[in-house]
Amino acid sequence: MPFNRPALKKWLVRLALVLTVPVGLAVFAALYVTFKIATYEQTDDAVHMASKADYLKSIAPSAGGDAPDIVVILFDDLGYGDVGFTGNQMIDTPHMDALAANGMVLQNYYAPAPVCSPSRAAMLTGRMAPRSGLTHVPFPSGTPLDRLNRFFGNPVRLPREEILISDILQAAGFHTAMVGKWHMGDHAESIPTEFGFDRFFGTYYSNDMNPFTLVSGRAGQGEAVSHAAPVDQTQLNLLYAETAETFIADAPTDKPLYLYFAHNFPHVPLYAAAQETGRSDAGLYGDVVQGLDDSVGRIVTALKQRGRFDNTLIVITSDNGPWWEGRGIGRGRKGVSFEGGIHVPFVAHWPRAVKPGRSDALAMGTDLLPTLLEELDLPAPPDRLIDGKSLASALRGGDGPHEVLYHYAAGTLMAVRSATHKYRARKGVAYPTDPVRFPIFQAHGPWLFDMRADRGEAYDLSMRHPDIAARMKALMDAKNAEMAENPRGWK
Amino acid sequence: MPFNRPALKKWLVRLALVLTVPVGLAVFAALYVTFKIATYEQTDDAVHMASKADYLKSIAPSAGGDAPDIVVILFDDLGYGDVGFTGNQMIDTPHMDALAANGMVLQNYYAPAPVCSPSRAAMLTGRMAPRSGLTHVPFPSGTPLDRLNRFFGNPVRLPREEILISDILQAAGFHTAMVGKWHMGDHAESIPTEFGFDRFFGTYYSNDMNPFTLVSGRAGQGEAVSHAAPVDQTQLNLLYAETAETFIADAPTDKPLYLYFAHNFPHVPLYAAAQETGRSDAGLYGDVVQGLDDSVGRIVTALKQRGRFDNTLIVITSDNGPWWEGRGIGRGRKGVSFEGGIHVPFVAHWPRAVKPGRSDALAMGTDLLPTLLEELDLPAPPDRLIDGKSLASALRGGDGPHEVLYHYAAGTLMAVRSATHKYRARKGVAYPTDPVRFPIFQAHGPWLFDMRADRGEAYDLSMRHPDIAARMKALMDAKNAEMAENPRGWK
Repeated sequence: MPFNRPALKKWLVRLALVLTVPVGLAVFAALYVTFKIATYEQTDDAVHMASKADYLKSIAPSAGGDAPDIVVILFDDLGYGDVGFTGNQMIDTPHMDALAANGMVLQNYYAPAPVCSPSRAAMLTGRMAPRSGLTHVPFPSGTPLDRLNRFFGNPVRLPREEILISDILQAAGFHTAMVGKWHMGDHAESIPTEFGFDRFFGTYYSNDMNPFTLVSGRAGQGEAVSHAAPVDQTQLNLLYAETAETFIADAPTDKPLYLYFAHNFPHVPLYAAAQETGRSDAGLYGDVVQGLDDSVGRIVTALKQRGRFDNTLIVITSDNGPWWEGRGIGRGRKGVSFEGGIHVPFVAHWPRAVKPGRSDALAMGTDLLPTLLEELDLPAPPDRLIDGKSLASALRGGDGPHEVLYHYAAGTLMAVRSATHKYRARKGVAYPTDPVRFPIFQAHGPWLFDMRADRGEAYDLSMRHPDIAARMKALMDAKNAEMAENPRGWK
Repeated sequence: MPFNRPALKKWLVRLALVLTVPVGLAVFAALYVTFKIATYEQTDDAVHMASKADYLKSIAPSAGGDAPDIVVILFDDLGYGDVGFTGNQMIDTPHMDALAANGMVLQNYYAPAPVCSPSRAAMLTGRMAPRSGLTHVPFPSGTPLDRLNRFFGNPVRLPREEILISDILQAAGFHTAMVGKWHMGDHAESIPTEFGFDRFFGTYYSNDMNPFTLVSGRAGQGEAVSHAAPVDQTQLNLLYAETAETFIADAPTDKPLYLYFAHNFPHVPLYAAAQETGRSDAGLYGDVVQGLDDSVGRIVTALKQRGRFDNTLIVITSDNGPWWEGRGIGRGRKGVSFEGGIHVPFVAHWPRAVKPGRSDALAMGTDLLPTLLEELDLPAPPDRLIDGKSLASALRGGDGPHEVLYHYAAGTLMAVRSATHKYRARKGVAYPTDPVRFPIFQAHGPWLFDMRADRGEAYDLSMRHPDIAARMKALMDAKNAEMAENPRGWK
């Protein structure tokens, strides 16, 4: 057929017709994704923002009273076995060990989640990740992973109606300061100074995220970027320690002090200053942890100089188990609900109140807020459930408050833990039950571990002790039902 | 435009034209995949099949001489810490413990690969997985995963030119018998009776694969399916023990005996007979391991009844670390080149020759074949490299033969291990080196671990000891170059 203009034109028209459906679908999909990301909005709960304000107003400032100074030190991805007071021989942590020797070490203390943000949100609100509304890890706004979160409708910041330890202590008349990693959103409405911190210096993200920008802020005065990315992370630990010293030295003496020192290390990438390098037997990771211990020492010295050390509560712990480097004493690592992901070191030092010793009481990060409420004789927020329970008795050598702990990963209840056992249900709705055809599902549980004899979670006893398994499964089912009914725990 | 037959016809012709390219591509792709799978053929090496035959002919039968009976017991996914003689308190293994108490326990013994088939091929040939030609796990012929192997051109059976311990011992006049899991192909040319076994009873696959069929065979008489799938796996351990007893009782008394007892357990799915159930403190997994210990006891009794126990070498080990259940003492599990994937228990018992004790000598599954060659004073195959080295001295309380071990996963060299350190290189060709922008790559290595102080592989010392790291990296580079030059190690 010779070249023919009208025929070509007709052919092109037909081609356009044929392509209409696939091209239309592709355009629609692109528009849908773009629209979904662009219109994503995380809303706050106006009712509970109002009751939050009422609750905080109801708290009488205890300024000038006998309230202790409170310092909460949270490390990032520090493993249970990475400090001297849990048996490490390769890393020297004399300052933490001294606090441990004169404080209470909780040996069955768990992070509320196996990853950063839900763990932090749960610790600071006393509410497990699904309750606090931050079940996922936020990424810097506008980055591809942030867009992914938005596309899937995941939360990208802590809801404003949540009540943090810092909100309460600020209302109670404390001078409140934060140094370090926030990682609960980088939006103007969800930054530290909006959640009860008078002063903030640190970063909104993990140190492996870009932009890794240092920010400083004062309540009511907005925030300012102090250091443009990339930050020289070799100086980060020294900078944080110095800032903590300054915050402590600058703190008003007529008010109790609350310092939340949430370090970015030993999360990768690891960095140490020249003078910190080469000191441990455990390489750069060990050097970094020894640097962290230096910072603990500097904070202790600054607190002593403040002159109220006898009435200062210092808590040291970690947000989850070790990631690439670092030592747990259990199975698995960060990100999983086995021991390696959630079992973390914990020490509380408070000369006037805490009894030195070691305890096997079950405890979790969510207990910190109710513990402080009890210690300070403050009311609990009346409009919401608090999942944690006060450790006041356990810290004085008494019993712990928990019969069982519930281990969540993101928004999913993964396991329930009693003093003696841990039960991990099969996750998902319908599993094939034929173990010959689908052994992988047998391999995935349900599992019942004896935590006294089998800390490594190696041997499933669910068939040996069906009574225990059934009892713990019933607890999980009940907790799941309760959560489904009222995930945010509003009263 | 009204309905118009000629226009419709024209439109359909245009549509066909437009669809030609995508439909053509799809048809081509389907044909390509089908063709690639259908024409896949794993070829054997005729030259080395001939030299194998020559080598085996050159071995003089030692029948009636002073050669020991040899029993190699290989468990599937048994963890280092799952037996009494490595410290387990929840599982009773009295028969293995007795052999360990009177035998040599190697505490730094490694499986040659972190998964079944390459580990087995390496142990039985003395040649690491890339050399023996079986770098991947074969699946039952014709199943989707088998087709996937074929599509990617992976090996699906042990090449016929490979020389197994059984080939050598059969040529040396041993009566050779195998009970249990083969897992090096289900093709007529690559089954146990084609590789030197006079008798075989067991299965070609893992117990989580379908069809899980039991097969029995005699050299020269073909094989017959004994039990149609699904096999009742609750009876499997008893069946294997009984078969081993029968094979031992039936073995000619004028010949030495070689029994390769390669159990399917404790690979999942786990099963135990009624009388085996409920005995251990470690649930079904523990019951299964105690059942395996029973079988060891029955084999020992049968060997004693044979009347040559004083001159019987019994080796017990595992093909890789524990999978879903089971206890390692290091990081990770089956499938990874950390300790948890490759560090396995090892005991050798031989009253006449092995000195009871414990040794930290480095050793690997590939050492078994050269050890037997030395013990029996047999020549090595002249046409190929053997990667393993004789443990004859180490088993008598002397030094081990290795300066370093090379840890392979599938066909890839992952790490090199010295008496003191383990070095794991970054895998892959080009890694971004900026740790701020790409921390994940920092997290993946290179890693240097101190295996004396840090068995948990928690702390990277590559920057602390760059000299050691460089030396070990050079060893890896040299080994990689040697392998690239002559992967199968033909001389």
